[in-house]
Amino acid sequence: MEYLTGVKPKETKEISELLEQAEAGAKVKVNGAVHTIRDMGTVAFVILRKREGLLQCVYEEGSADFELKDMKEAATVEVEGILEENEKAPNGIEIRMESVKILSEPEDEMMPLAISKWKLNTSLEAKLNYRSISLRNIRERAKFRIQEGLTRAFRDFLYSQEFTEIHTPKIGAKGAEGGANIFKLEYFHRPAVLAQSPQFYKQMMVGVFDRVFETAPVFRAEKHNTKRHLNEYTSLDFEMGYIDGFEDIMAMETGFLQYAMELLKKDYARELKVLGVELPDVSQIPAVKFADIKEIVAEKYNHKMRNPFDLEPEEEVLIGRYAKEEWGSDFVFVTHYPSKKRPFYAMDDPEDPRYTLSFDLLFRGLEITTGGQRIHDYKMLTDKITARGMTEEGMEQYLATFKHGMPPHGGLGIGLERLTMQLLGEDNVRETTLFPRDLSRLEP
Amino acid sequence: MEYLTGVKPKETKEISELLEQAEAGAKVKVNGAVHTIRDMGTVAFVILRKREGLLQCVYEEGSADFELKDMKEAATVEVEGILEENEKAPNGIEIRMESVKILSEPEDEMMPLAISKWKLNTSLEAKLNYRSISLRNIRERAKFRIQEGLTRAFRDFLYSQEFTEIHTPKIGAKGAEGGANIFKLEYFHRPAVLAQSPQFYKQMMVGVFDRVFETAPVFRAEKHNTKRHLNEYTSLDFEMGYIDGFEDIMAMETGFLQYAMELLKKDYARELKVLGVELPDVSQIPAVKFADIKEIVAEKYNHKMRNPFDLEPEEEVLIGRYAKEEWGSDFVFVTHYPSKKRPFYAMDDPEDPRYTLSFDLLFRGLEITTGGQRIHDYKMLTDKITARGMTEEGMEQYLATFKHGMPPHGGLGIGLERLTMQLLGEDNVRETTLFPRDLSRLEP
Repeated sequence: MEYLTGVKPKETKEISELLEQAEAGAKVKVNGAVHTIRDMGTVAFVILRKREGLLQCVYEEGSADFELKDMKEAATVEVEGILEENEKAPNGIEIRMESVKILSEPEDEMMPLAISKWKLNTSLEAKLNYRSISLRNIRERAKFRIQEGLTRAFRDFLYSQEFTEIHTPKIGAKGAEGGANIFKLEYFHRPAVLAQSPQFYKQMMVGVFDRVFETAPVFRAEKHNTKRHLNEYTSLDFEMGYIDGFEDIMAMETGFLQYAMELLKKDYARELKVLGVELPDVSQIPAVKFADIKEIVAEKYNHKMRNPFDLEPEEEVLIGRYAKEEWGSDFVFVTHYPSKKRPFYAMDDPEDPRYTLSFDLLFRGLEITTGGQRIHDYKMLTDKITARGMTEEGMEQYLATFKHGMPPHGGLGIGLERLTMQLLGEDNVRETTLFPRDLSRLEP
Repeated sequence: MEYLTGVKPKETKEISELLEQAEAGAKVKVNGAVHTIRDMGTVAFVILRKREGLLQCVYEEGSADFELKDMKEAATVEVEGILEENEKAPNGIEIRMESVKILSEPEDEMMPLAISKWKLNTSLEAKLNYRSISLRNIRERAKFRIQEGLTRAFRDFLYSQEFTEIHTPKIGAKGAEGGANIFKLEYFHRPAVLAQSPQFYKQMMVGVFDRVFETAPVFRAEKHNTKRHLNEYTSLDFEMGYIDGFEDIMAMETGFLQYAMELLKKDYARELKVLGVELPDVSQIPAVKFADIKEIVAEKYNHKMRNPFDLEPEEEVLIGRYAKEEWGSDFVFVTHYPSKKRPFYAMDDPEDPRYTLSFDLLFRGLEITTGGQRIHDYKMLTDKITARGMTEEGMEQYLATFKHGMPPHGGLGIGLERLTMQLLGEDNVRETTLFPRDLSRLEP
C-alpha cells in the first residue's frame, strides 16, 4: 500500500514559466512534440509543440550528448538544455540542447497534412477527415482554446449572477420543440428521442433554483446542409425567474458577453494573437423590433421581403450591416418575433399578441441566440396549447410544474460553435466544431 | 431602438444580502415563492422559499396594506417590509410585511407532495414522478447544489492544472468501449450509436492540447436495474499526456478531490449544513493492488471469492470497510486490474502483462472512477487489437492519431451522480440525479 497525496510540482517547464521564472543561462527541462526539424548542417533547429505554443531548441554537434537523427518529427521528447534569449525565436527564447529522452516515436513521421505551416493550407474536408492531426496546427487548435474561454465565461459569469448549473437528460420520451427535426431511438423497446434543447427541464428547474444554466449537447435532425447548421452542437442555455420583462434576459446576455470579452483579453491573449482576432465592443448592444428592422433594411438596401414572419439569412446579414453602419455595433438584438414562428411556450406581447416578448441576437449578421419570456400561467399555457391544436400528452410533468406555481421567467440558448465562428471570422461553423456532425459526416 | 448595457443591480435582496448588508429596522424588498403560510389568528407567518433558503415574513393586521388571504401557498410574490432580528426564525431574521405584489398564482395550491416538510417523507418513485415539485423541498434541492460544487471544482481545478476543455460528439458511427450496451439510432438512413464515453476523442485530443477534460452526458444501454446504475449519466472525464506513470493520474484525481472539498467548505457551507454532511478527509488516499486487496478482504472478512478477474459489489463494500478500518480513509485506489477485464487500449503492466497499469477509485465501498494509462505506441495498440480478435474498422482516425505520434498518456472518468450519492450518504443514485433514466424511466 502507498499513499497518494495530490499533485506534485512538474519538473518540466511550460513556455510561460520559462518566460517568467527562468533566467538566460539556466539549465531547464522541457517536454513536447517535435513539430518540425530544420537541419542547417552544423546547427539544427528542433521546434517543439507545447500547450502554450512553439519552443525553439537548438542542436549543435559537440554540445549535445546525442545525435540529431535520434530525433524524429512527430516524436514526443523530454529535453534538457540551457535557456537562451534569441529575438528571432518564437517568444524570444530558445533552448540549447544538451540531452534528450525520447518519450514516444511515431510509426509514420509523414503527416497527412502540413501541420507545421503557419496556415494550414488545405480544404475543410481534409481538415475534418484528419481532425486529430489538423488540430496539431497552432492556429487550428487556438480556435478551440477561444471556445473554451467562451464556455468558461458563460459559466463563471452566471455563477456570479446566482445561477445554479443543472444536468438534464438528453434521452426523453418527447421533444421540447416538436416538429420533424427529432432524432429517434429505441430505448429498451420503447420509442425515445434525443433532446433538441433542455427547454422544458430548465423551465421546470426555475421553480426550484430561480436561475439555472446548462452547457451541453443538443441534437437537431435538420436536413439543412449549410455553412451554419450542425446536427449536434453545444448549447449554452440559461433560464431565470422573477424577471420584470424579457429585457432582463437580454441584459444578462449582454453582461455575459462583456464578461467573456474581458476573460478572453486576460486569459486567452496568446490565442487571440495567434489568430489575429480583434474583440468586438460590447459595451452597449442595440435592440430593435423585428417588424421595424425588417422594413428598415428592406428599404435601405432595396431588399425584397418574402417571408413576413421570419428572417431569411440574407436579411440577417443586412440587419448586421445596418447595426454596424448605424450604431457601430457587431451585435444587435431583434425583438418581438411573430407569435406564429415561436413555440407555444413563448409569452405573447399583451400590447399586440401577434408578436411575442422574445428576441434573437445577431452577431455580424448571423443569429447566435434565441430567447424570450415564457408563459408562466398554467391556464394561459394550456389555452395556447389547445388553440394551436397540440396535445398535452407527454407534457404532463411540465404542465404540472405550472399548475403548482411558477414565477415570471425567461431564458435563452446560445449556439457555442456559431458564437465562436463569428468571433473568429470563420465562414463555416465546422471550422469551430471539434468533431462536426452533419448530414454526411458521422466520423471521426 | 434602445441599448442594452449589461446587468442592472437588483432591487430585491437575497438572504445573504439581508444578513450581511441590511440592518434591523431597514425597509427591504424581497421576492420568492410562498413555501408555507401559518395563520395564528392575530399574526401569520408566511415563509418564502428563496434560492438561498427560507425567509420568514410576518403578517399582522394593521401593519400591512393587504389581506392575508391575498397570499396563497405556491404563489410567487414580491414583498416590502421591515427587516427584524428574530432568533427563532430561519437565519435569525424576519420581515414584517407592509405590502405585497403578487407575481404569479398557482392554478392548484394543493401540492402533490408535502414539500414544506423538512424531510420529504415519500417514496423515491413519487419524488421522481413529481420531480419539478419534489425538488422544491429545501433538502432535496440542496443535493444538486452540492453536485454543482463538484462539477465546478472539477473544471476549476483542471483549468488551474493546464487542461483544456473539449466538447466531443455524442452521436457517432462506432462505440468506444464496444460491447452490447450501446444505444443505436438512425442517423439520416445510416446506423449510428450514442457515445458510451468520450474515450477515443479525449485521447485524440491529448496529441493536440496535452491535457483535456470534458463534463458531459454518456449513454449506457445496460440492462442492470440496480441502485447504482443509470442509463444516462454525467461523466467527468480527463486525459493527460506526458505522464511518468499511471500514478500521475491518481495524483491528479486526489488533487481534484482536495480542491473539491475546499470549494464545498467555502462556497456550499449552507447546503452541507442543510444536509448534515461531513466532508471526508482526502489529505491522503491509499492505493492497493487488485490481487492483493482481494485476498486480504477475502481472508479478513471470510468472503468467498467467486470471480478472480473483477470486483463484485460485495467485495467493493468490504474493501471500503477495510480502507476505513485500517487506513482511516473513505477513499481507496485499487490498482492493476486484470488485463482481461480492461479495454484493449489499456496499457498492460510490463512487469506482469496479466495486469494493467489501471485503477478504480472506491468511495465508501462503491466504484466512482475507472482510469489508467493507455497504450500510446501504434504497433502495440494494433497488435493488441489483433490479439483480441477485434476489427480496426471504424477506428481508422483513432489509430491514425497514434501512427503519427502520441505522448505517453492516461486518464479517467468519474460518475458525477455516484460521487454525489456517496458524498451525501444516499443509497440510490437516482436520489442524486436530476431526471434519472433507467430501464423503466424515460420521463419526466
